[in-house]
Amino acid sequence: MSLVRVHNFAVSLDGFGTGEGQSLETPFGHASHRLHEWFFPTRAFREMSGQADGSRGVDDAYASKWGAGIGVEIMGRNKFGHQRGPWEDDGWTGWWGDNPPFHTPVVVLTHYERAPIEMQGGTTFHFLDAEPKEALEFARSLAGDLDVRIGGGVSTVRQFLAADLVDHMHIAVVPIVLGRGERLWDGLEGLDEGYDIESVTAPSGVTHLTLTRTSSAA
Amino acid sequence: MSLVRVHNFAVSLDGFGTGEGQSLETPFGHASHRLHEWFFPTRAFREMSGQADGSRGVDDAYASKWGAGIGVEIMGRNKFGHQRGPWEDDGWTGWWGDNPPFHTPVVVLTHYERAPIEMQGGTTFHFLDAEPKEALEFARSLAGDLDVRIGGGVSTVRQFLAADLVDHMHIAVVPIVLGRGERLWDGLEGLDEGYDIESVTAPSGVTHLTLTRTSSAA
Repeated sequence: MSLVRVHNFAVSLDGFGTGEGQSLETPFGHASHRLHEWFFPTRAFREMSGQADGSRGVDDAYASKWGAGIGVEIMGRNKFGHQRGPWEDDGWTGWWGDNPPFHTPVVVLTHYERAPIEMQGGTTFHFLDAEPKEALEFARSLAGDLDVRIGGGVSTVRQFLAADLVDHMHIAVVPIVLGRGERLWDGLEGLDEGYDIESVTAPSGVTHLTLTRTSSAA
Repeated sequence: MSLVRVHNFAVSLDGFGTGEGQSLETPFGHASHRLHEWFFPTRAFREMSGQADGSRGVDDAYASKWGAGIGVEIMGRNKFGHQRGPWEDDGWTGWWGDNPPFHTPVVVLTHYERAPIEMQGGTTFHFLDAEPKEALEFARSLAGDLDVRIGGGVSTVRQFLAADLVDHMHIAVVPIVLGRGERLWDGLEGLDEGYDIESVTAPSGVTHLTLTRTSSAA
């Protein structure tokens, strides 16, 4: 069975995966870019934007695991766009331009139906109204034998964790105190019991945390 | 001016410094001993209980900073004891026996007056009804030129942080998800801005986090 993975998911010291006041201009609200400053200099990120430079240290070692072996991404609607409610025909096709960095099918969870959107470079957005388990089945049908990445946002990751569907998760803990926004860890008491947990600090100040399902190491 | 320091303060991944359901039998509630398992094997802890053995690794390196240069501790009433409300004359003198590990004056914050209690080994408990700033002045009057340790519990540390009175803080982040209890980080948005923050991981699985006031390094 293919694995369900989370990568490069950043939270503040106080556990917020996004700030308050998300909008078109500020997708992470008052957190602005502060949760992702460790990520931007990495070679993995630079390659996504067509650049051949970038750092090769420990931040990049983690960041570069994002795409390998992934056949599909599941994301929440709020990661896809800033709109809420029924879809308006405004030509919005995500934050990422004509050639999004996914290069696989992407399942966007939404209560509002919409026809798939085929982008350049192999990314197709599918829109689905489903609970995590059913969404995962659909995603696997698109992914072949490859793994499924849960791409965010915060509540989407939390829902898949709560449903015990995540096999591996990489979290970057950023040394800032956001104070408000959306918390990753809420309602997940005892989550650690099913995982081997490892922490590694980086010179950037970030702590990389990996949770790997205990049974999957056997 | 002497510094105000916090040491060996453990929180879960989701930021809880204690669990829910604190009582005489379970001072940390449903967290039980899980927040402090990294601490018990250290030489620093073993010495407190009169033993000469214990680990000498990175956990001990942090743990052993607890006492050096400290002239007084400030603690909340809930750290001192399990009672709430007016003091009952039940002979309670703290969790620590006749010879508590502090060996300095200890200021216990409480809304209910009580005469000081002099213990063996240099520990005297003083009871004070005061806000953080005033409590700190009183504590300094007992400490000479030595530093002041804020000993907990969670809300006491958080109040001193909110009042911008803490110069140095050592936190041990334990890889468990408690889900409920008392959060350290609540209401502290932007706390990171005044501090140099460093993270170091230990083989025990704990991440040691230090916040040192930026100006105090100058």
